[in-house]
Amino acid sequence: MSTTPLTLNDCRARDAADTLHPLRELFDIPEGVIYLDGNSLGVMPKTAAARAAEVVTQEWGQGLIRSWNTAGWFNLPQRLGNRIAPLIGADADEVVATDSTSINLFKVLSAALSIAAQDAPERKLIVSERSNFPTDLYIAEGLCKERGYTLKLVEPEEIAAALTADVAVLMLTHVNYRTGAMHDMPAVTAAAHAAGALMVWDLAHSAGAVPVTLKASGADFSVGCGYKYLNGGPGAPAFVWVHPKHADRFWQPLAGWWGHAAPFAFTPDYQPAPGITRYLCGTQPIVSMSLLGCGLEGFEAAEKLGGMAALRAKSLALTDLFIQLVEERCQGYGLGLATPRDHAQRGSQVCLTREHAAGGALGSGAFAIVQALIARGVIGDYRAGDGGIHKDILRFGFTPLYIGFEDVWNAVEHLRQVLETGEWQKPEFNQKHAVT
Amino acid sequence: MSTTPLTLNDCRARDAADTLHPLRELFDIPEGVIYLDGNSLGVMPKTAAARAAEVVTQEWGQGLIRSWNTAGWFNLPQRLGNRIAPLIGADADEVVATDSTSINLFKVLSAALSIAAQDAPERKLIVSERSNFPTDLYIAEGLCKERGYTLKLVEPEEIAAALTADVAVLMLTHVNYRTGAMHDMPAVTAAAHAAGALMVWDLAHSAGAVPVTLKASGADFSVGCGYKYLNGGPGAPAFVWVHPKHADRFWQPLAGWWGHAAPFAFTPDYQPAPGITRYLCGTQPIVSMSLLGCGLEGFEAAEKLGGMAALRAKSLALTDLFIQLVEERCQGYGLGLATPRDHAQRGSQVCLTREHAAGGALGSGAFAIVQALIARGVIGDYRAGDGGIHKDILRFGFTPLYIGFEDVWNAVEHLRQVLETGEWQKPEFNQKHAVT
Repeated sequence: MSTTPLTLNDCRARDAADTLHPLRELFDIPEGVIYLDGNSLGVMPKTAAARAAEVVTQEWGQGLIRSWNTAGWFNLPQRLGNRIAPLIGADADEVVATDSTSINLFKVLSAALSIAAQDAPERKLIVSERSNFPTDLYIAEGLCKERGYTLKLVEPEEIAAALTADVAVLMLTHVNYRTGAMHDMPAVTAAAHAAGALMVWDLAHSAGAVPVTLKASGADFSVGCGYKYLNGGPGAPAFVWVHPKHADRFWQPLAGWWGHAAPFAFTPDYQPAPGITRYLCGTQPIVSMSLLGCGLEGFEAAEKLGGMAALRAKSLALTDLFIQLVEERCQGYGLGLATPRDHAQRGSQVCLTREHAAGGALGSGAFAIVQALIARGVIGDYRAGDGGIHKDILRFGFTPLYIGFEDVWNAVEHLRQVLETGEWQKPEFNQKHAVT
Repeated sequence: MSTTPLTLNDCRARDAADTLHPLRELFDIPEGVIYLDGNSLGVMPKTAAARAAEVVTQEWGQGLIRSWNTAGWFNLPQRLGNRIAPLIGADADEVVATDSTSINLFKVLSAALSIAAQDAPERKLIVSERSNFPTDLYIAEGLCKERGYTLKLVEPEEIAAALTADVAVLMLTHVNYRTGAMHDMPAVTAAAHAAGALMVWDLAHSAGAVPVTLKASGADFSVGCGYKYLNGGPGAPAFVWVHPKHADRFWQPLAGWWGHAAPFAFTPDYQPAPGITRYLCGTQPIVSMSLLGCGLEGFEAAEKLGGMAALRAKSLALTDLFIQLVEERCQGYGLGLATPRDHAQRGSQVCLTREHAAGGALGSGAFAIVQALIARGVIGDYRAGDGGIHKDILRFGFTPLYIGFEDVWNAVEHLRQVLETGEWQKPEFNQKHAVT
């Protein structure tokens, strides 16, 4: 920790010196909002409104069915996939944008189990983290029931010991959604392979947030999200990557027309297209999918300014600053740090814990503090604990494309005021919504 | 057939007398286009552009993550489902809009096989039509491989005989995409049940085109498309219906967070939501999904003018007229009729065949005739035959919401000119695109 407390002016000076700072001008950030929830839904690129109008009124309205050819709808999943590939350490023609992360995880996990069933039929476990994103566990649970496998859930520090001779697949999310803790992708992938298991990575909280090295790490399968750090818009299609050595080996069971080798021959028998195209299934939501392209423009603009390496350096500087300011300015309010201090283990978010005792009759108060911050325009989010080792979490995402150092100062200042004034104890901040 | 040939003025008089004719003002139809491909991609409702702008700039841009609550994203699948329900003979809270038709078919076919495995494990066949929409067959083929079933494909007239004691599921598309022939939903469903099989209906070419009576027919499962007759925009999410007696009985294997009983509790174990909500999986493309609502407004406006019964009467009048005019005005060019003349067996499209011999060295010429028509602004589509009993098809969809009787006259007049002048033989109309 620094011995001289930081000031607002220090933060402004950092923005002035930040060569990435002008990139925020590519985005529309609502007046009066400090948006620290880009890990849940990224902000809107300024080009999105015009692109939506073009797709709706021109491509749909005027082009109609002809736009499959004239507007390039037919290879849009591949074109977007090729733009995502450099962000995740994949090569051209190895990625498609399509469907949701959950659906894509079903596809790759099905394929992984098919490979395992052939190469190592005695292996009957899928290992994952207990605090992996729940939908990933639900998909795995469903497939385990279908295929006669067992899903074994462990804490992060137990993963190495869990890689026994009966493990078929290790399935992990690269950056944990609750804590922001990041796995060492090359090391964990190597450990899985050394144990004879296949490695599936979910990049929901890392694509666009941290450098990802799928191919260099030797990973087998991966999926990721289009609407978090990639800024593709609400529910933007997800993406899927399969190592080329596996891509042609099996069908995935969601075999639809768009993954067929000759989709317009309308033959009754399924013949999977070569490569990653066989991971497509049915017709895609073209308007939402087109907007994902606007989100990717931000990364293409960043490319000239140092690309993901520069974004990563700024992300770490932002999260370091947030941790430092919280510790300097919000002492004595029962906050703890869930996110690792070690840069090598940190994604692009900082998660604070709060002890239940600190909130008295209001539980941990974590939910209410987040609501009070949102009312002040500082948007983060809350994730409930389980009453055990997983505590209530205040979660703040720092997207280096559009968050600056002064934003961090102001966010912490609001947090300090919410805690100091006891504002979070107001009844209106303690009413839980359907969705939080 | 009428003995007095129809005239353009007769057709104009019919438009003038048609109480549904003003509904076309709800849609933006490109200048100079007669759009007979609403069975492939419906035209744009005029409200779509403003709605897209609102969802993108306000709900996403300004509301950001808060829009899950404030813009009602969280129950959008159910709200849209409840608007689709009356079009398909379902009740409230029995339908959700989500994912693609292919993905939804996987869900319901999985559930149907789970029921069959429990109630009648000796039944190991899925029966369908050989000329069912291919993607439906691919999904069934994949599931058969997974679960140890066999997919048996028959011609429509062979279905009754194919309903033997080893059939678990009869899976049909209500209106055939190639011929426009429509099954008798109550009778076929009753026959399936009498034979001990479950009945799965794909409504891709019937929802919004013909009255559908899922519940009255006693059907078990159904899926359908949002972007054809429902005018929801390119790749708009599809929908899924499950009879309430089955809905709570099994998980479907695409178990994601949105189908969970408590989606924001983030528990590691999957607990399916009650009813149709468990057929949701991952995060949906909100922009594309919102535009589906614009498509449904057309049907809500038609409700005051007689609803689906009135739309059906007009649809039959349009297709009758098209058949009559083609037979009166395009004789001697080798055209045949693939669509049934019997109203009870006809959807909302007319499919013409052309013999290979009629096109000489250019094959049947069906592809080129369609291209020549498109160049004139008459947009239908072509579906290749198989060289056997399934001939090359010229396909024309008639959407009663926005197609009028004069459109039918003009379309046939263009067809007549294309045939009479031999214009279709030009080389540019014989170049096949990637997508047709």
